[in-house]
Amino acid sequence: MGLKLSAAEVAEFLTEVFPQVKDDFTIEELEEMRATVRLNVGERHLRPGGTVSGPAIFALADVAIYITILGMIGREALTVTTNCSIDFMRKPAANTDLVAACRLLKLGRSLAVGEVLVFSDGMDQPVARASLTYAIPPAKATRA
Amino acid sequence: MGLKLSAAEVAEFLTEVFPQVKDDFTIEELEEMRATVRLNVGERHLRPGGTVSGPAIFALADVAIYITILGMIGREALTVTTNCSIDFMRKPAANTDLVAACRLLKLGRSLAVGEVLVFSDGMDQPVARASLTYAIPPAKATRA
Amino acid sequence: MGLKLSAAEVAEFLTEVFPQVKDDFTIEELEEMRATVRLNVGERHLRPGGTVSGPAIFALADVAIYITILGMIGREALTVTTNCSIDFMRKPAANTDLVAACRLLKLGRSLAVGEVLVFSDGMDQPVARASLTYAIPPAKATRA
Amino acid sequence: MGLKLSAAEVAEFLTEVFPQVKDDFTIEELEEMRATVRLNVGERHLRPGGTVSGPAIFALADVAIYITILGMIGREALTVTTNCSIDFMRKPAANTDLVAACRLLKLGRSLAVGEVLVFSDGMDQPVARASLTYAIPPAKATRA
Repeated sequence: MGLKLSAAEVAEFLTEVFPQVKDDFTIEELEEMRATVRLNVGERHLRPGGTVSGPAIFALADVAIYITILGMIGREALTVTTNCSIDFMRKPAANTDLVAACRLLKLGRSLAVGEVLVFSDGMDQPVARASLTYAIPPAKATRA
Repeated sequence: MGLKLSAAEVAEFLTEVFPQVKDDFTIEELEEMRATVRLNVGERHLRPGGTVSGPAIFALADVAIYITILGMIGREALTVTTNCSIDFMRKPAANTDLVAACRLLKLGRSLAVGEVLVFSDGMDQPVARASLTYAIPPAKATRA
Repeated sequence: MGLKLSAAEVAEFLTEVFPQVKDDFTIEELEEMRATVRLNVGERHLRPGGTVSGPAIFALADVAIYITILGMIGREALTVTTNCSIDFMRKPAANTDLVAACRLLKLGRSLAVGEVLVFSDGMDQPVARASLTYAIPPAKATRA
Repeated sequence: MGLKLSAAEVAEFLTEVFPQVKDDFTIEELEEMRATVRLNVGERHLRPGGTVSGPAIFALADVAIYITILGMIGREALTVTTNCSIDFMRKPAANTDLVAACRLLKLGRSLAVGEVLVFSDGMDQPVARASLTYAIPPAKATRA
């Protein structure tokens, strides 16, 4: 089962449905069941000291899984996060983009489960890990 | 064991250490091991349709526990979130503040665990629930 | 919306579908969206020192939510756990039963979410907290 | 930073401290920050239909991380699980061993975080994923 949307098509869809955040994220790679997504860090994502905030890390993990699911199932804005478990493990590097590497572990009829590692750009120890569940509206999901 | 800081003192401390978010949150109540915190919903928290975004809900849950811990242990900016598990259960009401009711279940020497229910203001079914763990720097925590 | 099954009816159903664990658990109370369930601690649940094991605490949290859901939706063995987040906060008292107090926060068409506090019998500080999501087969769930 | 204990040494330690479960698990591989651990499935782990129970899957994930930590920090029975988030994604194959592949993402002074994928032996789609946090007693952990 291949991708239904390319990275450019997913980016276009995100711009339509979430215009507020369209400049925050860049899809660096989108493959079957996998994606790499960058948070273009700006002032609004930072805490004193230049560290990226927890909510910004959460937002990156969340959108990375959403992007990966959209690539597999197509334009489906109603796909929603139902659960996220996130571990914050290291302080992000100051004033540095974050990069999320994510993969789907399950893409079922009604639920998708993915996991994400978040890195400060260029570092090899992850800042955070997250696992998320998405609920997919009936008749859109495609793989047990 | 009582509060070390009042709601006003915690609010003042938040303004010092997180000036970016000082207008986002209002501490409605702060008691021993409990707090109620409001997200003053603005345009930046919304998704199309007027729904509060997932990252804004996460941010509210996170700051609500942080506020409760600060009330108990005093001015300690280095207290950091290490884990959050959050369930998104219902769509928030459009253009409506969110209110988080949280309590600490454990305030140990090095770890605190709290849980939060998040409501759209005036509703009785929760939008989300979250549980969070905070790591507390040595020599600050006070209760097993 | 009331209970579809009494505590005795749920206990009978559990004995049918999970005969291996029928003696492990006692339903102490079952109400709308709530239950209290006891783990009858035996040698097989213990670690050296008489402490109840993590898997036994997990099993109690899991069955407590399952019992509460069954009370609301009726005999439905196919309801399955999809996610659990659990915090182990204190060491259980030695050789002492555990009691789980749980409530459902959502009972939707396809997903139910509940939370549980687990206590050593007679103590007032919880040993653990857990939140669980269950997937409910189509046409069984009843409440948004 | 290398291993402090070999797989055989960890197995010997587990037999000493958790004699109840010594036959349940086999350490198939132990490397720096990684391990593969088998659940030797027996009648006591099964539900009707021959499916491995949720608590047995949880127990496997938990012990797999514990084994990996012991390999890195040495004989330290007091290392305890503080949090687990687990997603149950597919029904295990009937009457089949489970194999957990785990790795540590962080081994800090006081907290370790690891993640696990659990497979029915010989299958390539995971039955479950879990992430766990362990608290390490002072003066035992070794790596930021």
